[in-house]
Amino acid sequence: MKIVELRVHKVAIADPPLRSSYGLHAPYALRCILELKTDDGFTGIAEAHGGDAQGAALESVRGQVVGADPFQVINRLGPLVEADPTGNSADRSQTFLVPGENPYDTGARVFSAVETACFDIIGKAVGKPVCDLLGRARDEVPFSAYPFYKHAGGGGEGDDKREDEYGECLSPETIVRQVVQMRKQYGFASFKFKGGVLEPDIEVETMKALYRELGPDVPLRIDPNSAWTVETSIRVGIALKEELGRGGYLEDPTADIAGMAAVRRGLLKAGVDTPLASNVAVTGFGDIPESVKQDAVQIVLCDHHYWGGMRQVQHLGKLCKTFGLGMSMHSNSHLGISLMAMAHVAAATPHLSYACDTHYPWSQAKDEVVLGGRIKFVNGCVKIPNKPGLGVELDYDQLARGVERYAKCPYRKRDDTAEMRKHVDPNWKRVLPRW
Amino acid sequence: MKIVELRVHKVAIADPPLRSSYGLHAPYALRCILELKTDDGFTGIAEAHGGDAQGAALESVRGQVVGADPFQVINRLGPLVEADPTGNSADRSQTFLVPGENPYDTGARVFSAVETACFDIIGKAVGKPVCDLLGRARDEVPFSAYPFYKHAGGGGEGDDKREDEYGECLSPETIVRQVVQMRKQYGFASFKFKGGVLEPDIEVETMKALYRELGPDVPLRIDPNSAWTVETSIRVGIALKEELGRGGYLEDPTADIAGMAAVRRGLLKAGVDTPLASNVAVTGFGDIPESVKQDAVQIVLCDHHYWGGMRQVQHLGKLCKTFGLGMSMHSNSHLGISLMAMAHVAAATPHLSYACDTHYPWSQAKDEVVLGGRIKFVNGCVKIPNKPGLGVELDYDQLARGVERYAKCPYRKRDDTAEMRKHVDPNWKRVLPRW
Repeated sequence: MKIVELRVHKVAIADPPLRSSYGLHAPYALRCILELKTDDGFTGIAEAHGGDAQGAALESVRGQVVGADPFQVINRLGPLVEADPTGNSADRSQTFLVPGENPYDTGARVFSAVETACFDIIGKAVGKPVCDLLGRARDEVPFSAYPFYKHAGGGGEGDDKREDEYGECLSPETIVRQVVQMRKQYGFASFKFKGGVLEPDIEVETMKALYRELGPDVPLRIDPNSAWTVETSIRVGIALKEELGRGGYLEDPTADIAGMAAVRRGLLKAGVDTPLASNVAVTGFGDIPESVKQDAVQIVLCDHHYWGGMRQVQHLGKLCKTFGLGMSMHSNSHLGISLMAMAHVAAATPHLSYACDTHYPWSQAKDEVVLGGRIKFVNGCVKIPNKPGLGVELDYDQLARGVERYAKCPYRKRDDTAEMRKHVDPNWKRVLPRW
Repeated sequence: MKIVELRVHKVAIADPPLRSSYGLHAPYALRCILELKTDDGFTGIAEAHGGDAQGAALESVRGQVVGADPFQVINRLGPLVEADPTGNSADRSQTFLVPGENPYDTGARVFSAVETACFDIIGKAVGKPVCDLLGRARDEVPFSAYPFYKHAGGGGEGDDKREDEYGECLSPETIVRQVVQMRKQYGFASFKFKGGVLEPDIEVETMKALYRELGPDVPLRIDPNSAWTVETSIRVGIALKEELGRGGYLEDPTADIAGMAAVRRGLLKAGVDTPLASNVAVTGFGDIPESVKQDAVQIVLCDHHYWGGMRQVQHLGKLCKTFGLGMSMHSNSHLGISLMAMAHVAAATPHLSYACDTHYPWSQAKDEVVLGGRIKFVNGCVKIPNKPGLGVELDYDQLARGVERYAKCPYRKRDDTAEMRKHVDPNWKRVLPRW
């Protein structure tokens, strides 16, 4: 079996005006759909970060992928992911650059997409779901809801302007409404709130309102993406001791490993042992030794898209187990292919100790590129389908619409600062820490 | 595809009277050969530690294995290996018990054998070598020679007494002769010497004689299996600075993590940065955090047989790379099935940074149970054959002879102390540290 064709489809999908400390989501999120075809008629697919740079990076490995046996791709492309960039941890992190825009993990992102598509091919060729190729540890994967502060609007532009099922949510009450709506529709059993947008006291009040609404049995998390000082982080951690302390966590309250370690020390001193999670201070294997040494992060948020693929996530799971760290999964705006890939790798990672993040509720049926439409959640979980490979196929009509949307829209990379300047404040700058 | 049959063949293979700090090898080494058969006619095989206890442990999982899809065995047996025993590190280590006799890693050993046989089945079913199922990183695997102090004799008993190609080797000169012979026959490019048997000064002299014979480009290692005090270990490390410093290492000179860390500190203080390797102080994932914290061990010697199988070795590889540790592979007396399994997992572990150990030269063609006879080494390497699965099949006549040998011989577990008492000193006791 040989790969005979590599195709990269750059698509744009409507994305609501979500806020974070990085700024504002553009009306379209960008994704790449990778298609690999073999000489014996199998097609493997994967979804990756989007935009021109990611697309070009995927195209750049054509010479190494075409002609290769899917089973041996790691042999040819392995150096991409094995050569973890080291150097300055802050440069490598997602402190300043949003996920998918950091040149330091381009190799890992490319490898991941190719590996996922190869596993899809192999699964189809041998008649097994991808998680069985990797070693299945569970049959369904719990996801966490991902409420955001947002402006009114459902994403899209011009004729393609979308319905907005949530409306403006910039207060505790509207976030509670958003969460109630999302819970009803998807059955999520845990909630991660994207903070770092309003004054910390308002965000604390938002979390307390969520806690009052959901009760003590629903784990809550808050993620301000490094927006806070060490002092503010400790203050918020203490204020939310009860709310985050029941199976939840405090994610990246402040920047970098030293900052996170200082927050941890401060919280422990105050008798608060809420774990700190990270996908900003810790974004690759190279960050882990220092983080472990300083006890900076107690939960690593992996992401097969930029940690170098599915096997690397499995390795990370064992590493986290070994060092007594928790593990969960980070997400970006994505479609059903990424969701299924996340589900398979999570199903094959025994140590996954917290429900995975997902942005899936923020995408719309109109943009979904998998045949049969949107993936279903039952009680907040995605069940591994009894189908070979990832268990999803491309809807080529929908794909063509996504490609057309990409061609028409002006966005070629994710730039949340530009959107803030356009729609909120022409002088907006990301300031870390802001509070 | 379903597993319909599980068979455990307990075999005995002639083993020469090799010496180590554990005592003396018995005339027979014991191994278990595991055979799994599927409803569609595939047979997967694996080789494990031997004796009645290992055999019974393998038999004990029949209910979980028979009826299972080989792809999903991790799902059923995963808890065996995921539940790393914690508790007292010394109890779990191989400080007092030889590999294969520690009840704390029984689950990991059983899982490993079942997983290996399942990968053999899957490889055969999909027409791929096992290392390609795992992700191939290299096509051939370098092994290190494993010279031992030994008494005269080639193993076996009674009518089955064997030829001795090496004779008695209890002096520097005879060890040099042994190594020259082994190198000529197998082409090994690195050498690990089993010490902990004679006075440390004689062992230092033995290493110096090997170094004079082999020259500075051949990496040398010495492994006294915890026989020395911290002070002796440091003294030997300093004396062998040049001999071990060229790509070699000092393996388990003294017992436990604290002891190894003290040796490391002492050596660094004396300007000797020869890395310390271990498969005694560090024998499982649970030992690693403390070892990392204390910088006790710089090279982890894995062994898929008791680290919980092939995927666990891959996880360990990434963990070692992440923490800047080297990695190599430990060995026990074994046949060709284990050798091929070791070669496949090593081929699928990018970070394997030192040639693997092997006892293979100490076994004989008469005992080999793989069809076609002994596995070939070329320049000290085993090449991954272009065959599905492990690439070796059982020779059932040879297997029957091994089973008969087991039935006839009096040995039911490995007991190197009993052999020392029988043949060397009726009052012999393993004393740690001895020197």
